[in-house]
Amino acid sequence: MQPNEKLLSTRAKGTVDQPITFLMKATLDNPENISLAAGFVDQESLPADFTRDIVADLFEDHEASRSALQYGLTSGLAPIRKWVARRIESDGFANPIDPDRVVIGSGSQQLLFITTDCLCDRGDIVIVEDPTYFVYLGVLNNIGARAMGIPTDESGMLAEPLKERLEALEKSGEIDRLKILYLQTYYQNPMGTNISWERREELWEVVNHFHKKGHDFLVMEDAAYRDLRFAGEDIPFMAKLDKSGERIAIYGTFSKAFAPGMRSGWACLPEWLAPHVLRQKGNHDFGSSNLTQTIVQHALEKGHYQQQVENLQHVYRAKAEGMLKGIKEFFPSDVKVNNPQGGLYVWCELPADCPTGHDSALFKAALRNKVLYVPSVYCYCQEEGIEKPDSSMRLTYAMMPPDIVHEGLRRLGKAIEESRESISSAG
Amino acid sequence: MQPNEKLLSTRAKGTVDQPITFLMKATLDNPENISLAAGFVDQESLPADFTRDIVADLFEDHEASRSALQYGLTSGLAPIRKWVARRIESDGFANPIDPDRVVIGSGSQQLLFITTDCLCDRGDIVIVEDPTYFVYLGVLNNIGARAMGIPTDESGMLAEPLKERLEALEKSGEIDRLKILYLQTYYQNPMGTNISWERREELWEVVNHFHKKGHDFLVMEDAAYRDLRFAGEDIPFMAKLDKSGERIAIYGTFSKAFAPGMRSGWACLPEWLAPHVLRQKGNHDFGSSNLTQTIVQHALEKGHYQQQVENLQHVYRAKAEGMLKGIKEFFPSDVKVNNPQGGLYVWCELPADCPTGHDSALFKAALRNKVLYVPSVYCYCQEEGIEKPDSSMRLTYAMMPPDIVHEGLRRLGKAIEESRESISSAG
Repeated sequence: MQPNEKLLSTRAKGTVDQPITFLMKATLDNPENISLAAGFVDQESLPADFTRDIVADLFEDHEASRSALQYGLTSGLAPIRKWVARRIESDGFANPIDPDRVVIGSGSQQLLFITTDCLCDRGDIVIVEDPTYFVYLGVLNNIGARAMGIPTDESGMLAEPLKERLEALEKSGEIDRLKILYLQTYYQNPMGTNISWERREELWEVVNHFHKKGHDFLVMEDAAYRDLRFAGEDIPFMAKLDKSGERIAIYGTFSKAFAPGMRSGWACLPEWLAPHVLRQKGNHDFGSSNLTQTIVQHALEKGHYQQQVENLQHVYRAKAEGMLKGIKEFFPSDVKVNNPQGGLYVWCELPADCPTGHDSALFKAALRNKVLYVPSVYCYCQEEGIEKPDSSMRLTYAMMPPDIVHEGLRRLGKAIEESRESISSAG
Repeated sequence: MQPNEKLLSTRAKGTVDQPITFLMKATLDNPENISLAAGFVDQESLPADFTRDIVADLFEDHEASRSALQYGLTSGLAPIRKWVARRIESDGFANPIDPDRVVIGSGSQQLLFITTDCLCDRGDIVIVEDPTYFVYLGVLNNIGARAMGIPTDESGMLAEPLKERLEALEKSGEIDRLKILYLQTYYQNPMGTNISWERREELWEVVNHFHKKGHDFLVMEDAAYRDLRFAGEDIPFMAKLDKSGERIAIYGTFSKAFAPGMRSGWACLPEWLAPHVLRQKGNHDFGSSNLTQTIVQHALEKGHYQQQVENLQHVYRAKAEGMLKGIKEFFPSDVKVNNPQGGLYVWCELPADCPTGHDSALFKAALRNKVLYVPSVYCYCQEEGIEKPDSSMRLTYAMMPPDIVHEGLRRLGKAIEESRESISSAG
């Protein structure tokens, strides 16, 4: 322990580095590395022209520009909150959404963190998809909550194993420590899976079954990638099934389909939960940047956001196709690949004897070849006594131009080959 | 308890509303109210022209503009972090400051919160000035830390009572739960006090005395208002006394002397602490807005920030003088007022039989007269068995134009009169 480290709180002592920090730093610090890892968005299509025009217009207006540079409300700008409420309702919700249920955060990430902190004491339980968004696993580690993973198929988390897990928790007397079921309902990170409407209904039925028995928990519907759909049909929010509005919270963001540099995301929270999240946010920063929120507001009101969403459909469809083609060209044929309909990720499953983790021959070969990927081990929650697959990887086609992605895949194909040779020669 | 509130964490259950939320909302929601309460900055002098020009220039540059709209590093933009390090060194620090000790946050508020969360478990102790920044008291409430207040005079926290308090903690065996000494070293919120250099030395001596006995804790030097100096001499950071760099963290912000809407602040942390704060920030939001940071970076590099600091000296000197004049005109002569040399606040002490709290005749009379102030009771930490003064108020001259401040003081003077009449007629 460093001098003074005895001063640290239990929370700080127990918190490990987010793997994303390492991967982001490796990308930004070393321009020679091709990152198929970091979840940045496409650089070229970022809405620079829209933003320039919005800001130029905004600063024509004396009052409005000064308001944008001043403090604002902790909950965020009212017009964005209303837009979000109307957007959610437009899925055919049974009841109108009160904009007071909507909070603007510094990305949806901040609201995922705060919600979890508002519900979980150390040792409380959160159920996640296995694999899931590894940054959220970091949040759980930080807060000291226990993550439990439920297997998935191509339609999302499996309802039957969820039910079995809940029954096991009921039996062991731990079910009242279960606080959250965390689901990424659209183009899941890392697998790119969309939860089908039928699966949403099945999962909701399981949730309801336990609710009726007096065991309640919050469903956190992370819909960050919804607006990055480039194929297939649009599916309503799972929260539509929750007629009460009290048991599913929705999370969305303007980072993915507009600009991460705005750090603007939102949550639509149950009425009972919103004041607690707001209080916590007040303590964190008393409100996100008024300037970037004002830009987002104008982008929504002027239709720039909607236009950008349409642009991105073409951009990401082409980039996803390019990546799938490159994988076909450079990867061994026994690598299984999904076919995403939206989002930023391709999930590659290698044969079980090809581990991809940080210490694996493959990861080292990839670093040697100057290419980065996200090892699947980051994305599975580690549970004692349960073995998790460790031979997959998350790749993203999002940030880099197509020719660089192509070159990255060539390097990665080479790294796979090299690591297999080293494994077979070691064997 | 609401339906589902049993799901809340200990932290959420124990957290009360920040008084600032009520005051900010009352200001923004009801334009008829004149707020001498909310700590907003002067609206008219906000750097709209600088910001417009910076953004226009930035968006001429294809690469730079896209980087500003992309994700960045959790720690913040390197050029700002270097600027902060050089700025601190320029106070004549014995050793150079490593920019890796500097973290950019969503205002310094976020970094005050995260640092405190990294050090304090529930029940741990934080010593503060009495009165202190009430938002920080909210942070302590949120985290479940116990605040203990040390009296102050016109040169800052008194060293002797601090020593006595530490001795008492030593005796009671609680001193190892003391994690933080929180000091606002410049134009303190709410009293406007500057801690004199001699007092900084005295306080540091007390800290050292206990350090030598093996009782260590972090000094958090909140220097948010330093750049809003409009009279008197500039005093070096107290952290200059900490040759090791291991025991004083400094907090600063671009909110007060540039624009709160940027939500950009910084902390210069001891080396042993920085990685823990960074991890936590990674979990909260993996970095503050790259766009607003880029604007701040350009403002620093082009000298706009320094120019704005100079402008504000004139603005706030005039506004402070205006407020003092108005107080003289409208308040009873037995109201004691300080004479601030910087910052945003004037502190008024009424006679002890004139309470100013939320339920007082005066607060109600003020609301009736459509004027808001911060009651002193918000600013004193509440400790069992220790009576705290409750007949002062914090006023700010910052946000409103001088004529509105003048009218606000007229209303407040009337409210003081009315409340005294009601008290004397009730007696």
